Amino acid sequence: MLITVEGLDGAGKTTLISGLARSLGAVVLREPGGVELSERIRALVADPSLSVDPRAEALLYAAARAQLVAEKLRPLLDEGATVLLDRFVDSSLAYQGGGRGLGVEEIRALNLFGTGGLRPDRTLLLRIEPSQGLARIAGREADRLEQAGGEFFARVAQTYDELAAADPDRFIVLDAAQPPATVLESALKALS
Amino acid sequence: MLITVEGLDGAGKTTLISGLARSLGAVVLREPGGVELSERIRALVADPSLSVDPRAEALLYAAARAQLVAEKLRPLLDEGATVLLDRFVDSSLAYQGGGRGLGVEEIRALNLFGTGGLRPDRTLLLRIEPSQGLARIAGREADRLEQAGGEFFARVAQTYDELAAADPDRFIVLDAAQPPATVLESALKALS
Repeated sequence: MLITVEGLDGAGKTTLISGLARSLGAVVLREPGGVELSERIRALVADPSLSVDPRAEALLYAAARAQLVAEKLRPLLDEGATVLLDRFVDSSLAYQGGGRGLGVEEIRALNLFGTGGLRPDRTLLLRIEPSQGLARIAGREADRLEQAGGEFFARVAQTYDELAAADPDRFIVLDAAQPPATVLESALKALS
Repeated sequence: MLITVEGLDGAGKTTLISGLARSLGAVVLREPGGVELSERIRALVADPSLSVDPRAEALLYAAARAQLVAEKLRPLLDEGATVLLDRFVDSSLAYQGGGRGLGVEEIRALNLFGTGGLRPDRTLLLRIEPSQGLARIAGREADRLEQAGGEFFARVAQTYDELAAADPDRFIVLDAAQPPATVLESALKALS
């Protein structure tokens, strides 16, 4: 079973995943990363000294994801493991497709190629107002995405909402403004 | 004006490009590479210690190409430069689409996204028997692609032939078994 966790930076994905992993006995992976090539790609995208065109960035995320799927995710799922994945295709649809304005369908096509069509069984969307998420991460070092500003995050949040509305059987939408213990409880209840 | 040079490893692309650059006063770029991010991607794909899934590889080449187009190739063409490019989209169609069996149309779609549809004005295809190309590069260190074996190169060569046949206005097919000076002369004549 593949469960993905999605949402804006600052929504509380890491806290929720750590609580879920204990309760579900799940393997936790993060994107971009999880295998050596994907961690190296993550480092490229995060390197502030490099100029990264938005289309190149979208293709790099898709490449990192393709490697994670082929090298680790599919083998784990084939063994019957429950995998909790911190971000997956929906992140690229929301951030590159919506946020960067490259088009949700264009980004979906790249990722369909990269993942061979692998779909999460359930997706937990931690829904938060962009300003609230930004306030929570204000203490962290700003990276390329976080520098993109408020309008960018508003488009990302809107795209997440549209994805969830279009696929209600897969998406579980959680109110990330609630206390972490309440969010975890709601997530476990919805998954059970 | 954008002129791309394509063909199997060992076909003599480097020699031809160096002769053409002098005659045409052209800027020379190579793929994957030409800008910092793309050179870093090139290093990832060539690193023998990394496991690289074929789909991830195709996405990485498309990412490197997208960055080259955005950062250097389009600005040069906008300034009116003549650019000689050592490999472009056709290499991915032939190597990943044909050679790796990922499908020419699938690889074309990724690259259409990455390049924003930029098309070469002319493409010089150095045509050589795969066994002859392999014999020429036998002295060089084998990399990931060269390790893929004879059937792989036969599929690459066949895909190149199909691409050239489907787009005769763009492709100039040259017999790479001829002496380098003859190949250069034929190329200059066809381009003039």
